[in-house]
Amino acid sequence: MPLSLINPRTFRGTRDFLPNELLARHRILETIEEAYRRYGFQPLETPAIEYLEILTGKSEENDKLIYEIKRARGEEEESAEAAIALRYDLTVPLARVIAQYAELPRPFKRYQIQPVWRADRPQPRQGRFREFVQCDADIVGTDSLLADAEIIALTYEVLRDLGFENFRIRLSSRKLLRGIVSIIDSRDSMFMPICRIIDKLDKIGDDGVKRELVNLGIGWDKTVWAFDYVRTGFDSCRFNDIRVYLEANDQSGMGVIGLSEIEKVRLHALNLGVPETCLACDPTLARGLDYYTGPIFETVLPDHPHIGSLSGGGRYDGLVSTFSKERVPATGTTLGLDRIQTALTQLGKFKPMSSTTQVLVARFDAEGMSECLQMAAELRKAGLRTEVWYDDDKLKKQFAYADKQGIPLVVIAGPDERAKGTVALKNLRKQEQKEVAREGLVEMIKAWITSEPDV
Amino acid sequence: MPLSLINPRTFRGTRDFLPNELLARHRILETIEEAYRRYGFQPLETPAIEYLEILTGKSEENDKLIYEIKRARGEEEESAEAAIALRYDLTVPLARVIAQYAELPRPFKRYQIQPVWRADRPQPRQGRFREFVQCDADIVGTDSLLADAEIIALTYEVLRDLGFENFRIRLSSRKLLRGIVSIIDSRDSMFMPICRIIDKLDKIGDDGVKRELVNLGIGWDKTVWAFDYVRTGFDSCRFNDIRVYLEANDQSGMGVIGLSEIEKVRLHALNLGVPETCLACDPTLARGLDYYTGPIFETVLPDHPHIGSLSGGGRYDGLVSTFSKERVPATGTTLGLDRIQTALTQLGKFKPMSSTTQVLVARFDAEGMSECLQMAAELRKAGLRTEVWYDDDKLKKQFAYADKQGIPLVVIAGPDERAKGTVALKNLRKQEQKEVAREGLVEMIKAWITSEPDV
Repeated sequence: MPLSLINPRTFRGTRDFLPNELLARHRILETIEEAYRRYGFQPLETPAIEYLEILTGKSEENDKLIYEIKRARGEEEESAEAAIALRYDLTVPLARVIAQYAELPRPFKRYQIQPVWRADRPQPRQGRFREFVQCDADIVGTDSLLADAEIIALTYEVLRDLGFENFRIRLSSRKLLRGIVSIIDSRDSMFMPICRIIDKLDKIGDDGVKRELVNLGIGWDKTVWAFDYVRTGFDSCRFNDIRVYLEANDQSGMGVIGLSEIEKVRLHALNLGVPETCLACDPTLARGLDYYTGPIFETVLPDHPHIGSLSGGGRYDGLVSTFSKERVPATGTTLGLDRIQTALTQLGKFKPMSSTTQVLVARFDAEGMSECLQMAAELRKAGLRTEVWYDDDKLKKQFAYADKQGIPLVVIAGPDERAKGTVALKNLRKQEQKEVAREGLVEMIKAWITSEPDV
Repeated sequence: MPLSLINPRTFRGTRDFLPNELLARHRILETIEEAYRRYGFQPLETPAIEYLEILTGKSEENDKLIYEIKRARGEEEESAEAAIALRYDLTVPLARVIAQYAELPRPFKRYQIQPVWRADRPQPRQGRFREFVQCDADIVGTDSLLADAEIIALTYEVLRDLGFENFRIRLSSRKLLRGIVSIIDSRDSMFMPICRIIDKLDKIGDDGVKRELVNLGIGWDKTVWAFDYVRTGFDSCRFNDIRVYLEANDQSGMGVIGLSEIEKVRLHALNLGVPETCLACDPTLARGLDYYTGPIFETVLPDHPHIGSLSGGGRYDGLVSTFSKERVPATGTTLGLDRIQTALTQLGKFKPMSSTTQVLVARFDAEGMSECLQMAAELRKAGLRTEVWYDDDKLKKQFAYADKQGIPLVVIAGPDERAKGTVALKNLRKQEQKEVAREGLVEMIKAWITSEPDV
C-alpha cells in the first residue's frame, strides 16, 4: 500500500458511465445507429488527435476551445514541431477525410459517433460537458436539396424512434437570412455578427437580442418587422406573399433563392413522411457557425425550451475547400447524445438498468463447482447470458445480488439435487422456486426467457 | 477558397477508419461484446482525459508514454494547476472507478471498449499505433480462482467466435515465477527486472534473454534448467514432480502456491469448456507490467509468432489500493482489437464490405421524385436500409454506384411504370430485371432480402 492514497476523481466536465446508465445510453445509440443505417449512411471514425492547423482551418473562432496536446520527447519525426490537439467536432475531420481519400464514393453518406472535447466551462445541469459524444450524419458530394430533406426526415425518425412526441424541426436557409439581413443593413461584414446575435434568441430573449443589435448600430424595429413578416408568412404558408416582399425589398436577390430552397426542402421532407406539425419554417433560425451556406435546421422541444436544441445542422458547401481545390457540396446534422439523454430523462423515458445477465448459477458447495461450471458452459452455448457465483457465500447473499442486478433466474444444484439429477430453479421475477430435471434444463430456461419481454 | 490549402493528413500513429474497413471492424467488436455479455459482464466507460497523477499512480514506468494535455486559459477552477493527460490503458481507470463508487455491486464484472493513447514510436505493420482500441473484461472483488478461469474461458470463446482455429492460451502465475526466480537469485529487487527480460523471450529469443540476464549477473544455465524443468513438467502434466522440485529448491514457498493456482485455474477452465489443446501452462510467461500478483495469461498464434499476443491479462490484487484503503482483489484481460484485425486479415478472415444498404431507389426524372421519396419512406418503414439517388444522372451511373457499393437491389419508376402502377426491380446480384406491381413491392423486397444470406 502506498504511503499516501491518490484521491480518485474525474476531471471536471468529464464523466464516468457506470453500467446502469450506460446500458440505457447504449439503447439510445442503437436507435440512432439503426436509423442512420436505414437511410443508407455508413460508419466512419477519425482519430481523436489531429494536427491543430487541420482543426482550426480557416476559422479561428473556436481556437480557444481546443485542447492542445504536448508532444512527447521521444517523438522523433519530420513534423515533430507541428502542434497537435483533440478534435472539437466531427465536421472538420469529415471535410479533411473527403479531401484526403479520392476513392470514397459520391455521394458519400457517412455517420460518425465519437466523443469530442471542448475547453469550455462545463454546465452539467444544462448537459454541457468538456468531453461529450456527437452523432453526426452527413451527405457529401451533391447539391440536391433532396439530401437536405433526407437529413430532416432522418432527424424526425430518430427522435420518433427514441420516443419523443412533441418536437419541432426548425428549418430556414442562410440565403434567406442573408436576404433579410441585407434589407436591414446592407454591409456584408455585418452578416455573421448579426447571425450570431439572432442565434442567441432562445438564450437571451427578444430584449437581449435587441440590446446587442442596437449596440451594433442596427435598427431594432426594422429587424423585428422584417423577421416577423416572414415568420407569419411561413405560419400560414403564404410563400407567395413572402416572395413579393423579398423581391421588393431585398436587393441582394439572395432572399428569394433561400425561400425557394426552404419550400423545396419542406415539400421533399413531407414526401419522405415527416408530419407537417413537426416542421417549422422560421427565419429567426440562424445557427452560430460561419460555414453554413444553404438550408439550416435544428430541433427543439416546445415543452422544454431550457434543454436547447437536440440536433443542429445545415448545408456547408465550402468547408472541404479548406483542404482541396475541388468544390464539394455537403449537408448534414449533429445529434447531441447528452441533450437527448437529458431530455429523455426529464420526460421519464430514460430507464436505467443494472445488468443484461439472464441466469445466475449459484454456488452451493465446493464439491458442486464442476457441475456449476459445466451448467454455465451449457447455458452460454445456448446463447444465454450467464454468471457463476465465485465465492463460498450463503445463498441469501447470492439471491440478493441477483435481485439487485435484476437477474431473473437463479439455478442451484446442491448435493440432493445432484444425486437426483435435478436442479432447483428460482424465478426471482415470479418469486417462485421449483425442482426440475437437470436434463433439458437449458432448453426450458431458453424457452422461458424467449417468452418473457425484456429479458 | 483560402489563399493556401491546408494539407489533409493524419497524425502519425493514428488512423481514419473508412466504411469498408470499419464495417468489418464493427463485426469483430460485436462478436467480442456478445461474448462479454454472455459471461455476464456489463459495460463501463471512463473519460479520455484524466488527472495525470491518477494515470501514473504508484508506477512511473509508463510516464514517458503518456500524452499530457495543455490546460486552456479559460479554465478557472480550484485545481486548474493539476496536470491532465490522455489515458494509456483501461485498467488504471477501472481501479479508480472501483475506489470512487461505493455503490458498485460485488463482484463487479465490467467490460470496457475504448481507445487509449501512447506516445510510442508507431509500427503500423506490427499493428502498433499511438491511438488504438482496447477491449477489456475484468472481475473485481473476488479472490476466487474461478474468476481467473472465467477470464480464460471468455478469451477462448471470443477467439473461437471470431474464427480463430489454432491458438494457444498460455497460463502461469506470478507466484510460480517468484518461486523459480528466487531459486536462481534470492534478491527480491531482482524479480521485476528478470520478469521484464523473460517477457521479451518471443521478441529477442533465447540468446537475447541470455545476454540480458548475464548482464544482470544471473547464471544462464541455472535459469534455463529451472524453467525447462518446470515447462516439461507442465507438458506431461507431472504436477507432482514439479511440486517436489519446488519444495526442495524454492525457499520462498511461493512457487508451490503458484503451481497450485495454475492447476486449479486449468481444471476450472476445462470444466468451462476450454479444450485442453488450447491451454498451455508455461513458466516462461512473465508479462511486463508490475501490478500482477497471481495467475497471468496471454494468447498467441503458434503459426503466426510475429503478430505477438492477441490478449494478455492476469490477477492484480493491489492496484485499487493506489486509490483506496480497502483491499480489492481483481483479475481480467485485454483484447487488442488491432492485433486481432491484423491476424484475421492475414488468415483471410477479415472481409471488407462497402455498405449495408439493401435498396437503391433510382431517380429517373424530376416528375417522379415524389413517388421515389414515398417509396423510400415505405421501404424504410418496413425496416429496409434504403437510399434515394439525389441527382439528375443517367441510370448507368446509378447502377454503377449500387454495384460498387454492393447494394443488391435497385427500384426504378419511370413514367411508363408510374402510368401502369408498376416498378422495374433490378437485382444486381442475379443480374436480372423484372417489372412488378407497385402495390406489394415492399413486401416482395422484404421477403427476398430475408431469404438471402448476408443482405
